[in-house]
Amino acid sequence: MPQKPKRKPTRKPYELFYWPGIPGRGEYVRLALEDARAPYVDVVRERETGMDEMLELLGRESAKRPPFAPPFLRDGRVMVGQVAAILFYLGPRLGLAPNSEAGALWTHQIELTIADFVAESHDVHHPLSVGLYYEDQKREAARRAKDFREARIPKFLDWFEAILAANGATKTKARLVGASPTYADLSLFHTLDGLKYAFPKTMGRLLRNRPLVASLH
Amino acid sequence: MPQKPKRKPTRKPYELFYWPGIPGRGEYVRLALEDARAPYVDVVRERETGMDEMLELLGRESAKRPPFAPPFLRDGRVMVGQVAAILFYLGPRLGLAPNSEAGALWTHQIELTIADFVAESHDVHHPLSVGLYYEDQKREAARRAKDFREARIPKFLDWFEAILAANGATKTKARLVGASPTYADLSLFHTLDGLKYAFPKTMGRLLRNRPLVASLH
Repeated sequence: MPQKPKRKPTRKPYELFYWPGIPGRGEYVRLALEDARAPYVDVVRERETGMDEMLELLGRESAKRPPFAPPFLRDGRVMVGQVAAILFYLGPRLGLAPNSEAGALWTHQIELTIADFVAESHDVHHPLSVGLYYEDQKREAARRAKDFREARIPKFLDWFEAILAANGATKTKARLVGASPTYADLSLFHTLDGLKYAFPKTMGRLLRNRPLVASLH
Repeated sequence: MPQKPKRKPTRKPYELFYWPGIPGRGEYVRLALEDARAPYVDVVRERETGMDEMLELLGRESAKRPPFAPPFLRDGRVMVGQVAAILFYLGPRLGLAPNSEAGALWTHQIELTIADFVAESHDVHHPLSVGLYYEDQKREAARRAKDFREARIPKFLDWFEAILAANGATKTKARLVGASPTYADLSLFHTLDGLKYAFPKTMGRLLRNRPLVASLH
């Protein structure tokens, strides 16, 4: 007699903690969770007590390993902060990273470089202080933006184009690592999205000569 | 008859690639290698062909997984870029990180936060562009330095003090993770060193109220 099929045990959902409202860095984690259709709770958005819980976990006194800042992820007893570290943790669990040590490390290295790119991009609007309004540093932001457009964006895009090519990517199948999508692809997609919004002319011009990166978006 | 003791196979030295001259980010990796007395070659400094080798590896065409920028490490067939990723790789191999996944990840998370701290600290002198001389952005640097001293340094130091306390650290035995030294301790030591040099008054004042961080230096 055939056995009754065992029901797959339901996984306790991941808990993502991030500021509500603007997408920001939490979006990189959300994208991976959504892409993998993983069970997760966006705690501050979905639970009435979410904001209190997040502030409590950030609180210095109670937690043994409090993250420095949101976003952070809780998976049972494990708590991880820093976007790149969260994705490194989630990657193999969500099927969005290679299982080999070298492959996982390479994907992580790409993610860390994307994080640098995003940090520089964010700084363009706050060259003097994240505590000051953009309006109070507009002139400085304009100078910094020039350098970012002319020197930094091309340097980063060239690197992504080169590693896509080295991975054998084609315009119809552009993957940064191996043949399957990884969280690095998702993160680069999201970053390009933001840059196209912020610098439409520059990105339009630069992407014409970087067909592989262009096809990732 | 007693067997002739087998000679421990000599390890092929790690190869560290970094710009020669100023210490910079390569120093974080050097510190870990030195502390562990690991065999390594500081390629550009020690080999006559070192600079050419580094530029060749950074070259876009030849390498399959070229790092974005120095420092990077080669260990046989594995090549790793990004300071935090290099240390994550070296940590367990040098006995400078816990072996458990959660412990390794927590050490890495601390290192990533140190990297953020260092990046912000570096930006103080180049708020408009890393391509411009400090002299051409001196006024802007002064404004940014004020924010960094008053808002950012205390926020980071408070976090380090809190996680040291949560780890049961004492003034005579200040460790960030567990009971043994990790690369995170070395990196924080080096960062404090730089900050004390750059902001002697601020750091003197702030460290008086953060005894655990102070004792790490």
